[in-house]
Amino acid sequence: MIMNAQILNFTRLYRFGRPFSTGAVVCEAGEFEPAALPTNAIEGMNVNVGENSVVFTLALSPADRVYGLGEAVGALNKRGKKYRLYTTDDPVHTPDKENLYGSHPFVMVGGAVSPFGIFIDYPSEILFDIGFTKHDVMEIVIPSHNFNIYLFASPERTLTFMEIVREYLLLTGAPCCLPKWAFGYQQSRWSYPDAVSIAETAAQFRKLDIPCDAIYMDIDYMDNFKVFTIDEKKFPNFAAFTGTLKKEGFRLIPIIDPGVKCEDGYGFYEEGKHRRLFCETKDGSFFKAAVWPGLTHLPDFLNPQTRRWWAGLCRAFLESGIEGFWLDMNEPSVFYTPEAMQAVFNLVEDMRTNPDIPKRQLQEMVNALSNNRSYFKAFYHRTHLGDRVSNDEVHNLYGTLMAEAVADAFATHLPDKRYFLLSRSSYAGLHRIATIWTGDNMSWWEHMLSHIRMLMSLNMAGIFYTGADIGGFGCDVSPELMVRWVQLGVFSPLFRNHSAFGTRRQEPWAFDSATLDILRAAIKLRYALIPYSYSEYMQCVSELSSFIRPLMFDFDCQFDVEDQFMYGRSVMAAPVHEPNAAGRYALLPQVHWLYCSLLRHDDWAVSVLPPGVHYIDCPLERTPLLIRENSIVTLSEPLNYVGEREVECLRVVAFVTGTASYTYYEDDGLTYAYKRGIFSLIHIEIVNSGGAYDITIKAGGVPSKIKRIDFEIYGSDASLWQCSRELPI
Amino acid sequence: MIMNAQILNFTRLYRFGRPFSTGAVVCEAGEFEPAALPTNAIEGMNVNVGENSVVFTLALSPADRVYGLGEAVGALNKRGKKYRLYTTDDPVHTPDKENLYGSHPFVMVGGAVSPFGIFIDYPSEILFDIGFTKHDVMEIVIPSHNFNIYLFASPERTLTFMEIVREYLLLTGAPCCLPKWAFGYQQSRWSYPDAVSIAETAAQFRKLDIPCDAIYMDIDYMDNFKVFTIDEKKFPNFAAFTGTLKKEGFRLIPIIDPGVKCEDGYGFYEEGKHRRLFCETKDGSFFKAAVWPGLTHLPDFLNPQTRRWWAGLCRAFLESGIEGFWLDMNEPSVFYTPEAMQAVFNLVEDMRTNPDIPKRQLQEMVNALSNNRSYFKAFYHRTHLGDRVSNDEVHNLYGTLMAEAVADAFATHLPDKRYFLLSRSSYAGLHRIATIWTGDNMSWWEHMLSHIRMLMSLNMAGIFYTGADIGGFGCDVSPELMVRWVQLGVFSPLFRNHSAFGTRRQEPWAFDSATLDILRAAIKLRYALIPYSYSEYMQCVSELSSFIRPLMFDFDCQFDVEDQFMYGRSVMAAPVHEPNAAGRYALLPQVHWLYCSLLRHDDWAVSVLPPGVHYIDCPLERTPLLIRENSIVTLSEPLNYVGEREVECLRVVAFVTGTASYTYYEDDGLTYAYKRGIFSLIHIEIVNSGGAYDITIKAGGVPSKIKRIDFEIYGSDASLWQCSRELPI
Repeated sequence: MIMNAQILNFTRLYRFGRPFSTGAVVCEAGEFEPAALPTNAIEGMNVNVGENSVVFTLALSPADRVYGLGEAVGALNKRGKKYRLYTTDDPVHTPDKENLYGSHPFVMVGGAVSPFGIFIDYPSEILFDIGFTKHDVMEIVIPSHNFNIYLFASPERTLTFMEIVREYLLLTGAPCCLPKWAFGYQQSRWSYPDAVSIAETAAQFRKLDIPCDAIYMDIDYMDNFKVFTIDEKKFPNFAAFTGTLKKEGFRLIPIIDPGVKCEDGYGFYEEGKHRRLFCETKDGSFFKAAVWPGLTHLPDFLNPQTRRWWAGLCRAFLESGIEGFWLDMNEPSVFYTPEAMQAVFNLVEDMRTNPDIPKRQLQEMVNALSNNRSYFKAFYHRTHLGDRVSNDEVHNLYGTLMAEAVADAFATHLPDKRYFLLSRSSYAGLHRIATIWTGDNMSWWEHMLSHIRMLMSLNMAGIFYTGADIGGFGCDVSPELMVRWVQLGVFSPLFRNHSAFGTRRQEPWAFDSATLDILRAAIKLRYALIPYSYSEYMQCVSELSSFIRPLMFDFDCQFDVEDQFMYGRSVMAAPVHEPNAAGRYALLPQVHWLYCSLLRHDDWAVSVLPPGVHYIDCPLERTPLLIRENSIVTLSEPLNYVGEREVECLRVVAFVTGTASYTYYEDDGLTYAYKRGIFSLIHIEIVNSGGAYDITIKAGGVPSKIKRIDFEIYGSDASLWQCSRELPI
Repeated sequence: MIMNAQILNFTRLYRFGRPFSTGAVVCEAGEFEPAALPTNAIEGMNVNVGENSVVFTLALSPADRVYGLGEAVGALNKRGKKYRLYTTDDPVHTPDKENLYGSHPFVMVGGAVSPFGIFIDYPSEILFDIGFTKHDVMEIVIPSHNFNIYLFASPERTLTFMEIVREYLLLTGAPCCLPKWAFGYQQSRWSYPDAVSIAETAAQFRKLDIPCDAIYMDIDYMDNFKVFTIDEKKFPNFAAFTGTLKKEGFRLIPIIDPGVKCEDGYGFYEEGKHRRLFCETKDGSFFKAAVWPGLTHLPDFLNPQTRRWWAGLCRAFLESGIEGFWLDMNEPSVFYTPEAMQAVFNLVEDMRTNPDIPKRQLQEMVNALSNNRSYFKAFYHRTHLGDRVSNDEVHNLYGTLMAEAVADAFATHLPDKRYFLLSRSSYAGLHRIATIWTGDNMSWWEHMLSHIRMLMSLNMAGIFYTGADIGGFGCDVSPELMVRWVQLGVFSPLFRNHSAFGTRRQEPWAFDSATLDILRAAIKLRYALIPYSYSEYMQCVSELSSFIRPLMFDFDCQFDVEDQFMYGRSVMAAPVHEPNAAGRYALLPQVHWLYCSLLRHDDWAVSVLPPGVHYIDCPLERTPLLIRENSIVTLSEPLNYVGEREVECLRVVAFVTGTASYTYYEDDGLTYAYKRGIFSLIHIEIVNSGGAYDITIKAGGVPSKIKRIDFEIYGSDASLWQCSRELPI
């Protein structure tokens, strides 16, 4: 996967000191000629090398926008906030939070200044103060003298944000392609703890006629939270169970946590200790971290031997028919250490005898137990060169290296099979081997909006396929929020309904029958759109062009819009994300749009809206969808699950006032055969010739399975024109 | 203040059991004829009397809105959430929170059903599930058999929401009138701990030419947090200091907490103990609650003797020139009790010897220390009848009764002087004697929106003069959020900038000079608008008509709007409440509006906008303000503080396409002389007679101080017409 730096168009590497090799970049560093950062690299940008840090400052004009940073709390335009890139398991994503589970140190600036990008390849804490302390200054603090910084800028011409994203992906590699079933609906819960509850859940989907492709197994499937165990009382014959479910169209996705329970006689613990594959403290003893199983050791994923060992441990799952994993707690999360807990005990002891100690100290100390940064300074990794490095210095790599180990398991044991790998923690480059969801959100309307914004930001970071827990993980969801969030989920590549222990049940049938009907209709709409979603996704990956994009990337907008997005090239999503609303404001930029208000996938109310500001009606039972002028969307009948049967009839919905063309992409959805050219293309062109439409269809690649295309074409007055074409022509 | 129930128009009282007398209602209960609630009282409403509770359920149609509940997290339309009316000191107002500091058990329902209102006069926990569990059901659970429920409904005709609010205020009394200086800007900080820092702050306002009327004294002014003490090292001569500041136009507003520090030799503690004025446990010992001073006793404000004692304690402050107080922690807030802390110690002791106790228990126990409900069940009040009642049973009254004691101090010692009394906790009826702010919010954009919504909801509950901490109390504020929040503050009756210990400084000069200039301009605009604000406020109080209202109360709107509001009858506020925005969407209902974008109070860019959906431009340095068609706004030159000098020139800005009329109200702003008819009125009428304007001015009441009126009249094409008139005519 090493690319030739020559293919990069406007990237310059500036090297400070001797950076740790993170693996984020697929070009070999030797192909660059690192240089000292010239003071005029970006107009107005200052570089200050301090005693312990390097500080970049850049003046911002009112017209400048800052995009990027992948997973972060807050607005799409990153101005006005501070961000701390240091992976952490913080389950309360309030607006003031500076860091979450991932680190994506790639930002783009443009507006008054000609757009440029910065990628700081450094695996520990980086601080971004983007117009927070001073409204017109962006300050980046890297508390180190050893890092690579890549600048994406062209002195010759104005770059677009999309070109900069593409350049970043040329540098860090193309997103991995997930299997097509990943575009199905996925059901999760903390927990379906056993085979019985999973089978019942699966049966419920089929009985209630709700499509679904995957069911997650949260931590309770294990024997006492011991990783790579399956509680045999709960799953008497796991492989057979997996096989039975797969026949019904359900993939099982088990969770894997990094912490290995300290329990004598537990084989993987004994083996890891024996082979010294766990992280160590300074004195060479194994570091103890309390997580779900109680005290654990953390695998040292920086050590290639550990990764190989871990990959080997995955094998039994793969042999049981597992095609995807969910990696959690890999920031890594540490609830407490024995030493920190002892310090609390000691404080209480002191408080007993000394009433002058403010009681507040106890509360503060207890609240500082989780993921205290001191823990990460207290344990060490072994690099491939055999030397030791503290976790703190390479902190943000832990989750990605864990994902690498699991990805290697697939590459080794199922080399031609596409796999599904969802990680909570991530660093730049993870997108080549896995994807992420946005962690432990809440059943808050605000977090639905956050979902919309992170879809766009994460797409800029190369994570095209992603999403948030639909309905919210923590807190109780209302039926209305559930409905609106599932309607957003139609356009969220990862479409996973997940909720926490102790919260209200969130399965589609957990509410009233009217809500169930609306949820079913929205999920079916999602399935009906898969021919478009998958075709767009695969083409976006191939072109290194974000699948989900802000309007400002594609259009001249009279103002910035952060709650609508382009879903591929033809469709705009404008989800209703406020309670008690029967519609929402929308900006429709530049062209006319076909506003579709969908009661069901086959029940569309449409109207043509001119460019400008609108309030679009959208009662609770309808999903809004907008089709760009002269664009085509491909659909099919919704299946119960992806691949249930061959799709032989393509449904084309188009809004054509002039000429619209579209290339429909199709492959087996399961293997890497597409890399060998095994895919089919159907080129469709529709010309509005004043009332009637001329349709041209051309095939490319291997023969398509499609035997007929039904056209529903809307013209400038929203009138419908229908016809069918048989294939092959 | 007892009203005659006969003046009520469509109120019915239904009495369950033997309610505790809360004092919320100003009509004597005997004037009603309480009845059993008939099953057909409200169509579709069911009443279920259970063993320990009474449950009301009501089916909701999609078109039904629910308004009310005063202080609550979430949307203006209360549908889709659960609320728990049980006053609490919760400093993290995330969207899932069910209760805050106040209890205002008054809701209105209307839309598909003919609007009606419900007021449940019950001083302990009430649960509202308004379409949360079931989307189409409102459920009210009152865990008691003893309460009064008032139904505001008319079988004869369709009531408006405004009529129901007025009826609620006929029942519970008119809002108290604050002194005019309450409409000035107020500066607070936790803390300006001493005379030096207060004097410096005051000087800074005058030096930087920023108007300001009040400075708050947070808890650090006291000697070791002992209530009704002033640390003499910090304030060597308090009365003189107060006097000096007042000459410069600053009122000092000290905080008062309820908890009386348990410290031998501290006179008020000794006296309270001796006279048994503190809350007691079941066994008759005084209840111990830890708050800021450490262990304290809580005054038993249900006991009239305690209230008289407390009022007496206020007297020294009044004699030092204090005209307003800020009552905090009066939910009451309890950090922990000695017993609860001991239980934590015991758990730790057990954990030392038993490693099987999950460590999570410690975290949960520590996090449950603050304001645990068990505390409120463990202490008792003495009623005026001498019998005992647990705090839990009358919990929501505590803050209001504390406010009553302080209000009595003013009534006794300064009977003709209007006072300023800001309480954190409140119960229905508090509005007659005091007001509230919305507690410990955060420097979150979401909380600026919450401020907008609570202004409207609290106005429905009779709290016309209110506001949230501008800039946010907790967390750090960005310059942009500060600016936008101060621009909202222009239209927030309480205009207090307050921030917490440890957070970024928030005074107008704490940012860069560009931000300072924008903040100064917005604050001066606020002062320029005071002639309108005060005139509207006083007339709204007199008419029992909410000063701040949602658009839906005054206009036929094509959809609900929750982020704009009517500020009096002439002005609509549409604050920008999102980051990085250079404008916002706005719905302008029914009529034309003059959109004013204000760089300064005397630098207006105006345009006329037709009814409909708009995106209004509003760059950071401009405050948006909309004037209703055929409406008049009265302004003056901004003073440095209210009453700095006599306002002799009134500035009238009007948008007149037909006929506009306005009555400008004026009084001394300091006393209750207005109740004796000592106020002046100026009736202004402007008729647009095709290009020119006919102006009629008539005086009423006592002679006005106004000597000239300058008119700036905009017509339908936004062209400006100016003239002046001398007074008296």
